[in-house]
Amino acid sequence: MSAFNMKMMRQALALARRGVGKTAPNPAVGCVIVRDGVVAGRGWHKKAGTPHAEVHALNDAGERAAGSDVYVTLEPCAHFGKTPPCARALVAAGVARVFVAMVDPNPLVAGKGIEILREAGIEVEVGLLEAEARELNLPFIKWIQTRRPYVILKSALTLDGKSATATGDSRWITGDASRRLVHRLRGQLDAIMVGVGTVIKDDPQLTCRVPGGKDPIRIVVDSGLRLPLHAAVFNAHSAAKTLVATCCGDTAKIAAVAAHGGEVVACGAREGRVDLEDLFEQLGAMGIQSILLEGGSHLAGAALRAGLVDRLMIFFAPKLVGGVGMGLFAGQGVLKMADVLHLEEMKVARSGNDLVVTGIPVVRGRD
Amino acid sequence: MSAFNMKMMRQALALARRGVGKTAPNPAVGCVIVRDGVVAGRGWHKKAGTPHAEVHALNDAGERAAGSDVYVTLEPCAHFGKTPPCARALVAAGVARVFVAMVDPNPLVAGKGIEILREAGIEVEVGLLEAEARELNLPFIKWIQTRRPYVILKSALTLDGKSATATGDSRWITGDASRRLVHRLRGQLDAIMVGVGTVIKDDPQLTCRVPGGKDPIRIVVDSGLRLPLHAAVFNAHSAAKTLVATCCGDTAKIAAVAAHGGEVVACGAREGRVDLEDLFEQLGAMGIQSILLEGGSHLAGAALRAGLVDRLMIFFAPKLVGGVGMGLFAGQGVLKMADVLHLEEMKVARSGNDLVVTGIPVVRGRD
Repeated sequence: MSAFNMKMMRQALALARRGVGKTAPNPAVGCVIVRDGVVAGRGWHKKAGTPHAEVHALNDAGERAAGSDVYVTLEPCAHFGKTPPCARALVAAGVARVFVAMVDPNPLVAGKGIEILREAGIEVEVGLLEAEARELNLPFIKWIQTRRPYVILKSALTLDGKSATATGDSRWITGDASRRLVHRLRGQLDAIMVGVGTVIKDDPQLTCRVPGGKDPIRIVVDSGLRLPLHAAVFNAHSAAKTLVATCCGDTAKIAAVAAHGGEVVACGAREGRVDLEDLFEQLGAMGIQSILLEGGSHLAGAALRAGLVDRLMIFFAPKLVGGVGMGLFAGQGVLKMADVLHLEEMKVARSGNDLVVTGIPVVRGRD
Repeated sequence: MSAFNMKMMRQALALARRGVGKTAPNPAVGCVIVRDGVVAGRGWHKKAGTPHAEVHALNDAGERAAGSDVYVTLEPCAHFGKTPPCARALVAAGVARVFVAMVDPNPLVAGKGIEILREAGIEVEVGLLEAEARELNLPFIKWIQTRRPYVILKSALTLDGKSATATGDSRWITGDASRRLVHRLRGQLDAIMVGVGTVIKDDPQLTCRVPGGKDPIRIVVDSGLRLPLHAAVFNAHSAAKTLVATCCGDTAKIAAVAAHGGEVVACGAREGRVDLEDLFEQLGAMGIQSILLEGGSHLAGAALRAGLVDRLMIFFAPKLVGGVGMGLFAGQGVLKMADVLHLEEMKVARSGNDLVVTGIPVVRGRD
């Protein structure tokens, strides 16, 4: 791994990053073409149905692609989809070497693009900055391998761990910078999910209110169909649809939700509530790759305990309720400290006056 | 403020730091003497009753003190105490200039040392790195000005804000590095305080278990004198005494506590519990300048809400209880988010795998 190669792959990763949140159901990919030590072409995938990163970079490089080194953040595709296979385009352009950050995570096609390149006599090196490349497309990677959505559980807490006061007041815990960050995240993910309690209490729009942001699909988990039909999730100006996940069989209620523009997702029940595993499987089958789970505490607790949360993201505001209040997770937690869930790869950053703590929740067994 | 002067004062601050936690009831002070641009003498106050920082530095500099610049983190003393006044020693040594980081916080003597120096024709500059100098002696400064102890509320929480599971299990939340840090802190502060519930549940020794550390005075807040007489706080091998603060008038119980080596502090009552303001005033009058308040949640909540906490220190372990459990503060918190307490000057650091968040809790009124 020469320093130059890493620098070029970092440029390709930066290009890929421009597409994050805009390419679904495709992954974000970036590509840099270098000839004689100088960047000759750049490209990134902008939107599904439009050319892949490699095609943009080849077009940008023109004749200088012949004999070049190509740095691409994901294995070039080998199949005819909406665009012709990129591996063949690279061969046709006569490139000399290809650096691939990560193999295609789709187990059905993984390695086939690399094979085409190698069979054409092109030198291929795999794994340069692989961790960074994976980080860009975590939802896509999970979904393509499991057909389940990647779930980010987001919460806003005071430093004494309260998501609301004892009376339920939660506006606002975090500052402007954190709320903007959440809106940007909403625009990057396929869907946003809340429990019906949150809709009844706060009546949120669940839209992405940043310039140019696209609204996520709204999902309300509503075991008993208690959702008020005048709720903002039905009425907000938005191109995104509203799914209502329920295990309630009341056909009149189902019809009423449908009449108000909600799309009912009928789920199995577990202890009288929506079976979240069943729900997430159905959402994955619909092509939903990523979900921002924003609460409430019953839904968050159930999802966490069922092992359905891929990433936890807690915004801590520098505030204290100073006594009892609502917590992040309702329901039965572990009873022994030795049985706690662990947050791996914990990172902490500042967001305005708040802290943002992220990590991967895992059940690790006894310490 | 020249860069050189700041550098020298920083050296004086570093010297002072060596005494932090060892000089009570005196403040930690450091002194650097510079002659012709070269450090000629260094000193710091090591222990009450022994020479002050300036005396050590003057001895170290010897004849080179004449015509020198002196950097001292606290105004030289002007009074005969256990040692002769440092201001006069500096005059006698013939120093040319004195840089003082901060004026003596004791309102009764503030400025008198500087006056002696100036009257002797010595140039005095005050305020160089004052904030850093104050930071070193926060407990001393508070106590000398108010005769109340400086209170650090320390807690260990999971990231979902739990100090224990629903069944009360709290061992262990944080990792070794954090527990060592707490033991070092115990060794630096005058006293450690817990509620009787913590003693009944955990039976802690409340000693400082780091090599060379001195045990703090142990204080148990026990409104109803429920403290078990076989508790470890009475029996641990320790030179430090155990105070039991109560508003219970049961003379038989009081006698029993005294018979087991406990020193009873009789306090006024407020809503049937120990009046914490009264208690802290009595502790300050005893010369206790600093207290590490380690819980439980009722005591912590009451102290916070009474405005008696000077600094909050939360260790967040990368763990999740994932449901209900015990929180940092019990009792009635604020009901409206607009009324929350704020944590000012929030800092975050890593301690092993844990995070340590510190700050100053303040009631700020409506946002």
